Amino acid sequence: MSDVILTAAILVIGDEILSGRTKDKNVGYIAERMTDLGIDLKEVRIVADEKAAIIEAVQALAERYTIVLTTGGIGPTHDDITAESVAEAFGVTAPVDDRAVAILKERYDRLGMELTEARLRMARIPQGAELIENAVSGAPGFSLGNVHVMAGVPSIMQAMLDALTPRLPTSTVIRSETVEAGRGESEVSEMLEAIQKEHPGVQIGSYPYHDGTRFTTRIVVRSRDDDLLAAAVDAVKAALKPS
Amino acid sequence: MSDVILTAAILVIGDEILSGRTKDKNVGYIAERMTDLGIDLKEVRIVADEKAAIIEAVQALAERYTIVLTTGGIGPTHDDITAESVAEAFGVTAPVDDRAVAILKERYDRLGMELTEARLRMARIPQGAELIENAVSGAPGFSLGNVHVMAGVPSIMQAMLDALTPRLPTSTVIRSETVEAGRGESEVSEMLEAIQKEHPGVQIGSYPYHDGTRFTTRIVVRSRDDDLLAAAVDAVKAALKPS
Repeated sequence: MSDVILTAAILVIGDEILSGRTKDKNVGYIAERMTDLGIDLKEVRIVADEKAAIIEAVQALAERYTIVLTTGGIGPTHDDITAESVAEAFGVTAPVDDRAVAILKERYDRLGMELTEARLRMARIPQGAELIENAVSGAPGFSLGNVHVMAGVPSIMQAMLDALTPRLPTSTVIRSETVEAGRGESEVSEMLEAIQKEHPGVQIGSYPYHDGTRFTTRIVVRSRDDDLLAAAVDAVKAALKPS
Repeated sequence: MSDVILTAAILVIGDEILSGRTKDKNVGYIAERMTDLGIDLKEVRIVADEKAAIIEAVQALAERYTIVLTTGGIGPTHDDITAESVAEAFGVTAPVDDRAVAILKERYDRLGMELTEARLRMARIPQGAELIENAVSGAPGFSLGNVHVMAGVPSIMQAMLDALTPRLPTSTVIRSETVEAGRGESEVSEMLEAIQKEHPGVQIGSYPYHDGTRFTTRIVVRSRDDDLLAAAVDAVKAALKPS
């Protein structure tokens, strides 16, 4: 546990998300995990399976945030270019890795399948990287510097994130409390602005949504300090009471 | 219809997505619309409700892509700072706009509600911007240069996107065809790589997923040319047949 502010970015790599053919399910899942660890998720980028785009995003995000988590592009096909692109972003290469080969060999032997040239693509790991275990389908992810590279298939990504989590830094957790306003956002906005000014140690957000019959608003108060949080939530609740 | 390659980026603005509290539903929807219009969606960014982050992303994306579509941050509360941030990115201000005031006044009059100071925040529109109609809840979005600013609530965003669509450029539509491989990605990757090399006018992607009982693969072939598409799809289907 550290009191330092830790930040994160997610980089989603994949044409299938940008075409709308596949709906991303990883960002929300990783976002919740980051919140649990007290890491501020500051930015998400989704880019195509293009080397230049991946390298540029990895370099920009790795420089700016404490950690970067990537999903997608580490399978066995010709359009899976995440490993070589991340390697290039760090100025190294991604040769076939003995540790990864051993994992794949053990798995395919057990399944009675051949470790083909294509499957060996999944053993390409950047020099100096640490592996991330894949309990679902074998082929590992990896961590290079502050960049953690995971699969795009949600069940595999989730297993990799579980394996990675003990290695991630944690910080004082940001606590949040949600108050249902029971009315439209424009009816609470002045009140919230006043409360925000009086409570600088918290962040107050308002999130309008349609509950099926009407537009209403969730008010979310966040803070790293329990007492400041409680005081601001009390102020919000008091202001919402009919006078 | 143009033969020029048109590109797009989406900028999602909102702490609630980054915290994992709200799951984004707009990216997939907009992605499909872009595909329908023949516009290549090249990048998505999600940033917090922070002025500097919004300005930097708007400037980077507006320079690089034909159009930029933003969602979120145009409501009535203190954390809704998209309008002023986009204005600043273009070096203009976002004063209360007479056209937007007229729309809001008409709506709130009809509902028997008051046009409060907070609701007037939703009438702040950058100088020189064109309004985007909001058939759901009144408060308009706007287009400034090649940046199109929409609400974050999905039903409102979708109405705004419908209003905006006739103003967007369109291009020769990219057609795609999907072939279910019926087997794991590593079993088709070599074959796909060979077909990709023989068919440079198409893009072949493979998307592994778990269908509930096993890992299998969708193969998606895309092209701007119907004949090239058909030839590559035939090659994929032939290669998948048991020999």
